[in-house]
Amino acid sequence: MPMPENAALSPTLTLAMELMRRPSVTPDDVGCQALMVERLERLGFHVERLPFGDVENFWAVRGHHGPVLAFAGHTDVVPSGPDVLWEHPPFEPCIDDDGMLCGRGAADMKGSLAAMITAVERFVTANPNHDGKIAFLITSDEEGPAIDGTRAVVEHLREAHERLDYCIVGEPSSTSELADTIKNGRRGSLGGVLHVKGVQGHVAYPHLARNPIHETTSALDALVREHWDGGNSFFPATSFQISNIRSGTGATNVIPGELEVIFNFRYSTEVTHTQLRERTEAILDAHGLDYRLDWTLNGEPFLTAKGELVEAALAGVEEVLGRRPELSTAGGTSDGRFIATLGAQVVELGPLNATIHKVNERVYAADLDTLSDIYEAILGRLFV
Amino acid sequence: MPMPENAALSPTLTLAMELMRRPSVTPDDVGCQALMVERLERLGFHVERLPFGDVENFWAVRGHHGPVLAFAGHTDVVPSGPDVLWEHPPFEPCIDDDGMLCGRGAADMKGSLAAMITAVERFVTANPNHDGKIAFLITSDEEGPAIDGTRAVVEHLREAHERLDYCIVGEPSSTSELADTIKNGRRGSLGGVLHVKGVQGHVAYPHLARNPIHETTSALDALVREHWDGGNSFFPATSFQISNIRSGTGATNVIPGELEVIFNFRYSTEVTHTQLRERTEAILDAHGLDYRLDWTLNGEPFLTAKGELVEAALAGVEEVLGRRPELSTAGGTSDGRFIATLGAQVVELGPLNATIHKVNERVYAADLDTLSDIYEAILGRLFV
Repeated sequence: MPMPENAALSPTLTLAMELMRRPSVTPDDVGCQALMVERLERLGFHVERLPFGDVENFWAVRGHHGPVLAFAGHTDVVPSGPDVLWEHPPFEPCIDDDGMLCGRGAADMKGSLAAMITAVERFVTANPNHDGKIAFLITSDEEGPAIDGTRAVVEHLREAHERLDYCIVGEPSSTSELADTIKNGRRGSLGGVLHVKGVQGHVAYPHLARNPIHETTSALDALVREHWDGGNSFFPATSFQISNIRSGTGATNVIPGELEVIFNFRYSTEVTHTQLRERTEAILDAHGLDYRLDWTLNGEPFLTAKGELVEAALAGVEEVLGRRPELSTAGGTSDGRFIATLGAQVVELGPLNATIHKVNERVYAADLDTLSDIYEAILGRLFV
Repeated sequence: MPMPENAALSPTLTLAMELMRRPSVTPDDVGCQALMVERLERLGFHVERLPFGDVENFWAVRGHHGPVLAFAGHTDVVPSGPDVLWEHPPFEPCIDDDGMLCGRGAADMKGSLAAMITAVERFVTANPNHDGKIAFLITSDEEGPAIDGTRAVVEHLREAHERLDYCIVGEPSSTSELADTIKNGRRGSLGGVLHVKGVQGHVAYPHLARNPIHETTSALDALVREHWDGGNSFFPATSFQISNIRSGTGATNVIPGELEVIFNFRYSTEVTHTQLRERTEAILDAHGLDYRLDWTLNGEPFLTAKGELVEAALAGVEEVLGRRPELSTAGGTSDGRFIATLGAQVVELGPLNATIHKVNERVYAADLDTLSDIYEAILGRLFV
């Protein structure tokens, strides 16, 4: 359905394109939050700017009593790479002949931010004395280190004893069509960097060396084949993936002295990160390796199995689209992992994720208007 | 046995130090061959300079009839690395308080070159009308690509129908004390570069990717554990070593799309390089890998099981040192692999190899004089 050239853009698309014109590569915000804050203050939101380090964040609230529903998201985007790889310049958003809004951030997640703002604008205009409190938790560091962003804001809210009951994260959760999937949890992410020590030498004298590659193949094979758990009704089975392996001096006649292996677990609520660490080390120990293993816990798993928010989200989508989404916990991590620690119910609901982090990122323009309607419908179910 | 500061240096040590003062890192000769040629021409050798590409080589002959014994060696040395790592500057040879000749090339193999020249000088002076023909085959590309060096000279000799019966290569063959080991052959060397193809993806979505590391661990484990042969009375068992393994984008959340593994066989005369290739590929095929494998045959194994040269070498060492060396085919490759293709009997006999290719390369100064005596004794056994 091509969009006529002279068609008036909807408020959601107009705002999405205003945000996308700002090249806010992590951690730069480039004025995106100012745009959002201006719109929210006009609606009567109380806005608290919360910069940490070089990261801009804000927390905005409207309403005086009852449960708190926060829309959460990020204004930062991943780098675009060379412009020449893009059909349209990444920071000059346009709607193409197929009705796609094209440009960096269209899907992840300036489209969602625009849909949240316009949904709240319509809802507040129609319900100036709504129940509950509507909030926004916005960061510019979701795609980067994720330390001074949502995590820091959440710690601030915890210390301020701010209440947070429901949170809708605008991450692109849809896979084949809009809102076919709502994420009601995420797997945990545990990273490991393994260094296996050997003894360097000449390939012609292997008895004088100890080849760390040879010593480790069997242990790696065991780790790759290990059945970590079977998952459960909410989570797929825990998965182990080696992302990098590296050993060797470059010379073809030298037995290397060290092997480095970088791996990552995406894990369900059936195991803990402590169990995964212990089981991994037990396998390495059983193979008699001389190793050092450094762990990084990127995020524990979280799950909103059921509750008012999940019900409102499912019903809101059904109200707008006439079909019921699936709940899923698949995929990468998101800032939901930090927000869930406040005890909030958390869902992620946003546009199709097929093009995120890629060149020619794009999303059906009409989907953003529909997404705004869905957000508004969820507000209506919770706060009217 | 420290050497008195004012001790007169022997002709062998004087020449060795003259050669070592020239920083002849492969393929540069820096005048080393000119020094040798001058000494040989003075003895009546006919010298043929044989430069190929940027590599200097020469072939020198003295005598008019009978079998040909060539001394073979190289004037090039491996790089020294940073001077600060050395106790003494690598290209300023000196004899230290322990009586060690220190500097790059002391052991590999300017010490041997000096010992060959002085041995021939004494022998020719004492036996101006010796039997047979004495030859020198000298290159400046043994430590490098080894293409325009001995290999090219050997092809030249083959085309010129030059006879070559015996060859003594001056490679440092000794392990614990001088001439405890004579090498009468070398294992073959076969190299492989394996590329396993997978499908790149995000670690959170392993079902959409195919991790080439995961697919290969089992095959690598099988290769590492394979019993290739049991060796024989001349050769140790064939050995397989992985020198380099590399996969991953550097990012910790990306499943890589390709794995590279570089490996090397050092193989006995119990298998052929064709068999090794076939068996390796059978193992990879059995694991269902999508791979490309590029082979490089660095050298086929060679062996001089017995004959006049081996007998003369064993007896020559016993005459000078009162003990009989062991014959061995262990260790890396040498230019002997090229010379053997002319049908020559080949042995390698030189100083201790403990420090070759390392910082603080050194050799007992007195050993070089003894080595010169041994070379002379072998000449005496073959050509008097």
